[in-house]
Amino acid sequence: MRRPGFSRRSFTSGAAVAALVPTGLTAAHAAAPAGRSAAAPAQVRRFTMYAENLPNGQLGYGLEPGEARIPGPLLEMYEGDTLQIDLVNNADVAVSLHVHGVDYAIDSDGTRMTDSIVEPGESRLYTWNSHAPGRRDDGTVIAGSAGYWNYHDHVVGTDHGTGGLQRGLYGPLVVRRRGDILPDHQYTIVFNDMTINNRSGADAPNFTAKLGERCEFIVITHGEFYHTFHVHGHRWADNRTGYLVDENDSSRVIDNKICGPGDSFGFQVVAGEGVGPGHWMYHCHVQSHSDMGMAGLFTVTRADGTVPGGPPDHGGGGHGGGDGGGHHPHH
Amino acid sequence: MRRPGFSRRSFTSGAAVAALVPTGLTAAHAAAPAGRSAAAPAQVRRFTMYAENLPNGQLGYGLEPGEARIPGPLLEMYEGDTLQIDLVNNADVAVSLHVHGVDYAIDSDGTRMTDSIVEPGESRLYTWNSHAPGRRDDGTVIAGSAGYWNYHDHVVGTDHGTGGLQRGLYGPLVVRRRGDILPDHQYTIVFNDMTINNRSGADAPNFTAKLGERCEFIVITHGEFYHTFHVHGHRWADNRTGYLVDENDSSRVIDNKICGPGDSFGFQVVAGEGVGPGHWMYHCHVQSHSDMGMAGLFTVTRADGTVPGGPPDHGGGGHGGGDGGGHHPHH
Amino acid sequence: MRRPGFSRRSFTSGAAVAALVPTGLTAAHAAAPAGRSAAAPAQVRRFTMYAENLPNGQLGYGLEPGEARIPGPLLEMYEGDTLQIDLVNNADVAVSLHVHGVDYAIDSDGTRMTDSIVEPGESRLYTWNSHAPGRRDDGTVIAGSAGYWNYHDHVVGTDHGTGGLQRGLYGPLVVRRRGDILPDHQYTIVFNDMTINNRSGADAPNFTAKLGERCEFIVITHGEFYHTFHVHGHRWADNRTGYLVDENDSSRVIDNKICGPGDSFGFQVVAGEGVGPGHWMYHCHVQSHSDMGMAGLFTVTRADGTVPGGPPDHGGGGHGGGDGGGHHPHH
Ligand SMILES: [Cu+2]
Ligand SMILES: [Cu+2]
Ligand SMILES: [Cu+2]
Repeated sequence: MRRPGFSRRSFTSGAAVAALVPTGLTAAHAAAPAGRSAAAPAQVRRFTMYAENLPNGQLGYGLEPGEARIPGPLLEMYEGDTLQIDLVNNADVAVSLHVHGVDYAIDSDGTRMTDSIVEPGESRLYTWNSHAPGRRDDGTVIAGSAGYWNYHDHVVGTDHGTGGLQRGLYGPLVVRRRGDILPDHQYTIVFNDMTINNRSGADAPNFTAKLGERCEFIVITHGEFYHTFHVHGHRWADNRTGYLVDENDSSRVIDNKICGPGDSFGFQVVAGEGVGPGHWMYHCHVQSHSDMGMAGLFTVTRADGTVPGGPPDHGGGGHGGGDGGGHHPHH
Repeated sequence: MRRPGFSRRSFTSGAAVAALVPTGLTAAHAAAPAGRSAAAPAQVRRFTMYAENLPNGQLGYGLEPGEARIPGPLLEMYEGDTLQIDLVNNADVAVSLHVHGVDYAIDSDGTRMTDSIVEPGESRLYTWNSHAPGRRDDGTVIAGSAGYWNYHDHVVGTDHGTGGLQRGLYGPLVVRRRGDILPDHQYTIVFNDMTINNRSGADAPNFTAKLGERCEFIVITHGEFYHTFHVHGHRWADNRTGYLVDENDSSRVIDNKICGPGDSFGFQVVAGEGVGPGHWMYHCHVQSHSDMGMAGLFTVTRADGTVPGGPPDHGGGGHGGGDGGGHHPHH
Repeated sequence: MRRPGFSRRSFTSGAAVAALVPTGLTAAHAAAPAGRSAAAPAQVRRFTMYAENLPNGQLGYGLEPGEARIPGPLLEMYEGDTLQIDLVNNADVAVSLHVHGVDYAIDSDGTRMTDSIVEPGESRLYTWNSHAPGRRDDGTVIAGSAGYWNYHDHVVGTDHGTGGLQRGLYGPLVVRRRGDILPDHQYTIVFNDMTINNRSGADAPNFTAKLGERCEFIVITHGEFYHTFHVHGHRWADNRTGYLVDENDSSRVIDNKICGPGDSFGFQVVAGEGVGPGHWMYHCHVQSHSDMGMAGLFTVTRADGTVPGGPPDHGGGGHGGGDGGGHHPHH
């Protein structure tokens, strides 16, 4: 499904897409934790998404006609921002957009029951709001919207979107809190039934970074099965951001996590920190799943792009579109 | 299994039941975080529970003869309180009461191995203690008993109570810390094999609240399968209480959680906060499970009781006993 | 697989083994939270592990020739320490050593893809480093290595070690932070497919402690299935250490936890605290799993070694090697 010619440049060339990249997220480097200042005004951004048929019976979301892919585009916002998404249905079945984590009125629910789906050839506006942490009048705390969320169809095949999910109608949504550390790379990994991003075996996505780059993994599960996400040589904190802001934080640090359908989480690692360059496997740790191809590579190169031990033979992991599999709107 | 005539009034009319409602919990509103004062003495409350046969081969626990239901009654206590429960077995098989989270001597374990089960026609006293956080003599911390726990049979069918759980012998236990915020409504949702509260499809429980009311969900899993609990338009903190007491808490905020048999957790949401009224689905996010009927509605009404879009057609969710499915001892 | 004559004495008699016990860990009692001082130098310890064939087609890791067992030896280190492990392969298939949680260069990955496996009759050095929490130059936090981790083969049967795990090539690794509380007993429980430590039913491991002793459970999952670990009468905090250091910690306190393959966690309980002595079951809470024998006993005795109710009939739990099933390097 991945187009070889896909690059960050084409991704960020359209006006609609540019609107998706919050000011301050572009090309930010983790070395200087950035983001808009706390006083920055919330943004309202309106853009169009397209649902389309893809080869082999698959379906995808895209930001331009003919550009649908699996997973759908990485959408990002700061707490307080609003996304107004005109979903144009160019596919041959009714589709919808249901999102986790953010605020939306019932007419943006994306379910048949609430009449918030889109027939073929039609379009519909979905509005997603978000908010920073706050206090209610009674003094209790309102949790902020920040998190590693996901969006997906809720109507193809069944009223829970089982067919839409199987065929590829899903994608990541990251809501950041002002001050959150921004990554150099972002990788979306969706364990969808027995596939990764609807690919498997030798076609599973690989990811590449240079030693010391900050890499954000967005891990989503869909479908029927539970999975355990594992990556070699790297760990993360099992909390909101996946990293610690305080050495005394009692969050568990892990490198393996059980997830079920609908779950999503994210984390950032510094590529090769403490372990050096290499072809580091990531895989589902359920034995039959990894054996059947739910495995790929997180390749950490030296500054000059080389990797110890030379090119992998892919015997233990999949391979795919080079640096692909993740969308890199920040470059 | 739900009796149409069941109301909070009948639930709270018996002396035994009144004993279950801690002072200060009755009709408390979240707007004024309440509870007994820190100096309030611990309570010892003794009451009777009845195990009974129910139609269709099911079994239930109840607080009065003939009032058994599935799930069993919501039991609540503050840290430091003791519950002394005389379990009368009016069913035709030996049953027991095994509880998670609180303190009990081995003769209240509820297992065949420890001779703490109840033969038909007999009764047995189970004593559950609880405690506030504290310090041991060596300075290490004793965790308090507060949590969203559950109780269940451990002997029907097999020595692990597999038959008792399948047939309905389970219920929720909430242990609160003094100062915890009290809800307006409480909903118990037990994913038990492929059912919710031993009901499924069009009979799955629905819940209703008015916009702005504080609703507590107590989510329990039993049986054979893992599930992922998801609710539309609402989120919670993945910690002890399900809410934050500090905007800087690093707890992950989620709207989807994987659970397995024996797990239980709880959280509070303010109905429709940031999203407004509507028929909000809750469901297991395992696709085949929701498709087979593990779905219901969390309906949030306007102050006048109306809901945007009119009555749901239940096409995507189940329907059940109106406000039912949860026990509301606090009203 | 457990040798009746196995004792802590034989375990700690060899020089190689002694090297595994960090200074300050030996015979430490929890009543005086101990550990090396913050200024203690990191240690580099080198020792040999042996992979061997065991009866019934099983495989194990051991610290002396002929001493392989399942699970493999409990390895422990403080943050900052390094373990240099010469793995001697005395088995008849190529094996490897892949570890979770700590730092290792790609040539210690233990995978076929990285040529870091060991052919029969050969040996290989695996180096595991660890580090305390710290700060990067940019001020962001580096999480420490402390955790309840696990090591396992990654090559027998398949390139993900599915055969090696099934046959017994796995073990626990505990990395402690200076100041962490040290236990009196340590128990390793590996839910491996439908077994506990490759044993099941009447042969499942049991554990024994005296009332008031601090017991550390190290719980690991491997294989194909998810499980829910549950223990009667005892609870723990769902965080890094399994205990609280602050009464206001918002970590959830639990007694039941869903885990999938590759997951590991640990916790400490004070035996019988608040509940007294007894034969306390631990088991997988997935009903068919406990019914098929994924259950054992955590027996808490009075000071004189007696237990209320006399000897268990093992009707509800397994039985095994007395105090066995855990390795007790600290005594
Ligand atoms: Cu998997
Ligand atoms: Cu389910
Ligand atoms: Cu199990």
